[in-house]
Amino acid sequence: MSERGIDVLLSTNPANMAYLTGYDGWSFYVHQLIVLSQDADQPLWIGRGMDANAAKVTTYLDHDNVFGYPDDYVQSETKHPMNYVADLLKGKGWDRGTIGVEMDTYYFTAACYQTLLRDLPNASLVDAGTLVNWVRVIKSANELAYMRQAARIIEKTMQTGVDMVRPGERQCDAVAAIYASMVSGTPEFGGDYSSICPMLPTGIGTSTPHLTWNDEPFKTGEATILELAGVRRRYHCPMARTVHLGKPPQRLTETAQVVVEGLNNAIAAAKPGVVCEEVESAWRHTIERHGIVKESRIGYSTGLNYPPDWGEGTLSLRPGDRTVLQPHMTLHVIPGVWLDDWGIEISECIHITENGAQPFCDFPRELVVKD
Amino acid sequence: MSERGIDVLLSTNPANMAYLTGYDGWSFYVHQLIVLSQDADQPLWIGRGMDANAAKVTTYLDHDNVFGYPDDYVQSETKHPMNYVADLLKGKGWDRGTIGVEMDTYYFTAACYQTLLRDLPNASLVDAGTLVNWVRVIKSANELAYMRQAARIIEKTMQTGVDMVRPGERQCDAVAAIYASMVSGTPEFGGDYSSICPMLPTGIGTSTPHLTWNDEPFKTGEATILELAGVRRRYHCPMARTVHLGKPPQRLTETAQVVVEGLNNAIAAAKPGVVCEEVESAWRHTIERHGIVKESRIGYSTGLNYPPDWGEGTLSLRPGDRTVLQPHMTLHVIPGVWLDDWGIEISECIHITENGAQPFCDFPRELVVKD
Repeated sequence: MSERGIDVLLSTNPANMAYLTGYDGWSFYVHQLIVLSQDADQPLWIGRGMDANAAKVTTYLDHDNVFGYPDDYVQSETKHPMNYVADLLKGKGWDRGTIGVEMDTYYFTAACYQTLLRDLPNASLVDAGTLVNWVRVIKSANELAYMRQAARIIEKTMQTGVDMVRPGERQCDAVAAIYASMVSGTPEFGGDYSSICPMLPTGIGTSTPHLTWNDEPFKTGEATILELAGVRRRYHCPMARTVHLGKPPQRLTETAQVVVEGLNNAIAAAKPGVVCEEVESAWRHTIERHGIVKESRIGYSTGLNYPPDWGEGTLSLRPGDRTVLQPHMTLHVIPGVWLDDWGIEISECIHITENGAQPFCDFPRELVVKD
Repeated sequence: MSERGIDVLLSTNPANMAYLTGYDGWSFYVHQLIVLSQDADQPLWIGRGMDANAAKVTTYLDHDNVFGYPDDYVQSETKHPMNYVADLLKGKGWDRGTIGVEMDTYYFTAACYQTLLRDLPNASLVDAGTLVNWVRVIKSANELAYMRQAARIIEKTMQTGVDMVRPGERQCDAVAAIYASMVSGTPEFGGDYSSICPMLPTGIGTSTPHLTWNDEPFKTGEATILELAGVRRRYHCPMARTVHLGKPPQRLTETAQVVVEGLNNAIAAAKPGVVCEEVESAWRHTIERHGIVKESRIGYSTGLNYPPDWGEGTLSLRPGDRTVLQPHMTLHVIPGVWLDDWGIEISECIHITENGAQPFCDFPRELVVKD
């Protein structure tokens, strides 16, 4: 904040709120935020009145730093929660100087911004962008421990998913088993909800990554992509695999081999000091030799998150991203290939160590064929 | 749109996108929208390139009305997906006149608005607010059929939840069973993910509604609130119940009776021609007689939705809401009471019929005591 000349920072990103205060609840469907001031030892939490007790239960904040707005601010045509926020900032004398907001963050709507602009005429509102997200990029030992627990959960959950994709089984019953495994976790530690629901494109749906399930049965001759995450205390370890029922077409078998080779090469290239685009380049050179073209990024930072995304919105493995990899960054490397009417995903979540990259999971890195 | 003088409407609300085109995928974590023009027979779908096939698979749109933007627009510091949208509008000649945007909708960020303002200097951007949401408020016969199927799912899922809340059972294992039931659905029709995850405040957590689970075991002497939904093809039927393990304190038993009486009176008051605040008033008069005060709204419209909310952001059962109830509105009536260190929720999802209100579910409307 000091480097950017920000006196007061407003953060509506639920992961940033959790990271900085511990706040944890599914209340981000109404406006809420935390306020960080250079003048104060603690952030303020501001949200809906009925959620203030959730802040008292889940955060380390002193209770007089928790503010609940009255319920008539909720989804009102005449008043906006940011009116309340602006009044509170005025009361603290924090309505002058430079106030940072997260302009392109989920839940910071155009109306939030307009309301603040109108109600804080003495402040200069600036885009703080992904300032807090970038702090989250390097994980502490405790955060890595949660991600390792999430890895144990996704290993068992992915196996459940692979087992359940079989001819005649309804997609919804497979996902029921996946959710049960994911949420139950292990006997030592329980699981959490994932910031993206299980994704399960099947048949022609594998030509695109973000389709969910229905109640049709799996069919022999079709592929299914499973993109899932294990989650422990909001920390994610995502994984994608592709399952084919019956003898796969040659193009799928061959592409799977290339994708695995490219993924292996990308992971081998990832280490401290290397920039993101170099990791992507290791992938790109591999697939180019086999005539495969992929336009989209092949990975991103992951960890603590809330719906709708388990990515952190910071670094991407793609051309032009010159972010230097550092120890204890954690990335989901997902070089999905989606073509006109078919596709494949095989991914790994990796930990940048002192001298390389270590996958969190131990799960066969291959196309799963059930013949 | 005509009444409001809107020539072109941009909708980023995933439920509005699904309602108007059929689009269904968990891709709302990147910018996407539909465009409705008075000049065109069909909306346009605009989203990330890799999701364009999902639009082709799930919508009725002609494929030349589906536009995927290149991947370097995703989470970029230098370009924004709304740059692409603005260019596309210019190409169609739709960059003049009045363009409606949903100013306070999830996923329409401040940056989306700023980018459009900058890139569309010849347009007048106006707030279309919840224009499409209000169309969704009255359900068709098909929509009601999905909600009835969702009701069958939540009846069985709530029973699963009630059964699983027992001393020594881990919260995460209860939620695993809840998810499995919710997603599996029934042998006739499968379930879907809910737009809010299962909420499960326990013990002191019952003083606030939106806490999720952990891996601690349930304890005798504590209450647990279950707020869940059955979901069928994105249509929700929510339900909340409260379970107490062991002999409940008198304040809980008594409050439960008042809440049920108030809920019954609210449902009895709900019928076509009555305004929303009158329904709330029937509740309020009931609880006032017993000395209970509740500030927050007691219900809202529900149905088709995507994370983070199953509410539609339109009518609310609260003082000042003069929305006239009409046949085939569907409401979640949830008069939760949350006090300093305890609380209770007992709710019903109702269908406004031609002459009254019909709960979707048949489930005992009471505090569940497991002694």
